[in-house]
Amino acid sequence: MDESALLAHIYERSAGLAGAVRVGPGDDCAVVRVAGGTDLLLTTDQLVEGRHYEPGTDVGRVGRKAVARCLSDIAAMGGSPVACLAAATVRAGFNEADGLFDAMRAAASSFGCPLVGGDIAIARGPTVLTVSAVGAPHPGRGPVLRADARPGDLVCVTGAIGGAVASGRHLDLTPRLAEAAWLCDELGARLGAMIDVSDGLGCDAGRVAAASGVRVVIDAAAVPLGVGATDVRAAIAEGEDYELLFTCRGAPPPSAPTGAPITVVGRVESGAGCVMTLADGSIVDIAGAGWDHTG
Amino acid sequence: MDESALLAHIYERSAGLAGAVRVGPGDDCAVVRVAGGTDLLLTTDQLVEGRHYEPGTDVGRVGRKAVARCLSDIAAMGGSPVACLAAATVRAGFNEADGLFDAMRAAASSFGCPLVGGDIAIARGPTVLTVSAVGAPHPGRGPVLRADARPGDLVCVTGAIGGAVASGRHLDLTPRLAEAAWLCDELGARLGAMIDVSDGLGCDAGRVAAASGVRVVIDAAAVPLGVGATDVRAAIAEGEDYELLFTCRGAPPPSAPTGAPITVVGRVESGAGCVMTLADGSIVDIAGAGWDHTG
Repeated sequence: MDESALLAHIYERSAGLAGAVRVGPGDDCAVVRVAGGTDLLLTTDQLVEGRHYEPGTDVGRVGRKAVARCLSDIAAMGGSPVACLAAATVRAGFNEADGLFDAMRAAASSFGCPLVGGDIAIARGPTVLTVSAVGAPHPGRGPVLRADARPGDLVCVTGAIGGAVASGRHLDLTPRLAEAAWLCDELGARLGAMIDVSDGLGCDAGRVAAASGVRVVIDAAAVPLGVGATDVRAAIAEGEDYELLFTCRGAPPPSAPTGAPITVVGRVESGAGCVMTLADGSIVDIAGAGWDHTG
Repeated sequence: MDESALLAHIYERSAGLAGAVRVGPGDDCAVVRVAGGTDLLLTTDQLVEGRHYEPGTDVGRVGRKAVARCLSDIAAMGGSPVACLAAATVRAGFNEADGLFDAMRAAASSFGCPLVGGDIAIARGPTVLTVSAVGAPHPGRGPVLRADARPGDLVCVTGAIGGAVASGRHLDLTPRLAEAAWLCDELGARLGAMIDVSDGLGCDAGRVAAASGVRVVIDAAAVPLGVGATDVRAAIAEGEDYELLFTCRGAPPPSAPTGAPITVVGRVESGAGCVMTLADGSIVDIAGAGWDHTG
């Protein structure tokens, strides 16, 4: 084999791997097929001091949240975490980096997702933690996408919505990995689309509607409000709930084995957009009701 | 199956995956075994404005470097890239985020490594790009570790060392993926340890010595200096070369099919540490000669 043929062979080997993107950007995770036909879930997520947590927050809780919210994206695909990586940008003189990485390592381990690598850099500015995770799709159901809602599906959420930021609960979230796996086991093909409610039930349900090419109608009276939440219109726009929102063909079970309640909050119809019906019969557009992490 | 047994089953499934860490933190990439016995290389890397590039640098070059230096870690393990993720933290009002992501996408694609997901957040502070990559180990050689140098090995580098920052070449680096794959093909079991020279030949060779439990002796006169480098002691401490440093049982080929020269710069001995012999016969400790990204 001459040199150019050899290099062509090397590049071809890479190109073959590169061709295996099954789901690209736009869902909670990408899905990439690797050698042996194994599918991987891949996701990355940033936690920024002053945006996602207050300066001065205990680094143990900060590190845990950074990992947990990344793994919430694995849960949103119905997957199980395999391993994660963490990168931190901190100020010069910041003396809690060890504590941060210890917290990320412990949290990752507690979620069955070993922290296998990291990077640290110094910069003027807030602390930024970037966690990237690899997961495995559910072996039976496969990746659960945002795009699989169909007219006739019921729209369901685990847990409760709203009050997570005001109460501080957002710092102690547990990603709904067990519930997601159990939903895949239990519902199989009856499970339609799924997403985690990170930015607000309104905009996250709107993402499901847009990805699936359907209309989602939420019933305000049905939304289970979290402790500290009083107004449903505020609750669906707050975000940081990290609950699962999924669509289901037929009635879902009333709760998961973990004890997490499951509530039907709406339905999927033909059409487009995401609206909420209020007690007075009026209908409001909620597809934009959420928290813009970049805003 | 009752609820607790079901949950135990779900957690056990995750725990089984979690047990598959073959190489944890401390090498250029972690190695994780997933379903089907497939091994993955995993790495994450940050590029910080003001530390790894000057403010005002063209975003096309910045985005490319962010991807390229992450994939240099895949090359350092002898692997081929499979897919990558990118996260960016930028200032409010920063209007080149699209350009940054376009550049990262194009660079990733050019290296055979599709960018499959991303995240963007706003923060007061410099732009921080975090790229995480998944790779596949060389199918024949397997992951090439820092820990596999043995007394008697020759120490070799691709390309040239020094001058990368002063010349601006560091912004246009091409990760040595083709050369790394070819070294695995060509040398097989004769290839010992490998690392990429990102922080300085001195400290990176020192890392190989420490990981392998050996002593590395570099011959100053043998180090091929890059354009713009004049002093070998400065050159081995500059970093940002992104060349491969590897150990070889027997003589290496003089160059790779890509044209990259391969130079024997030293040898591996029993003992510990990393030193350089100078023209006057003196010996200097160089294990600390490098650029501390966190300093």
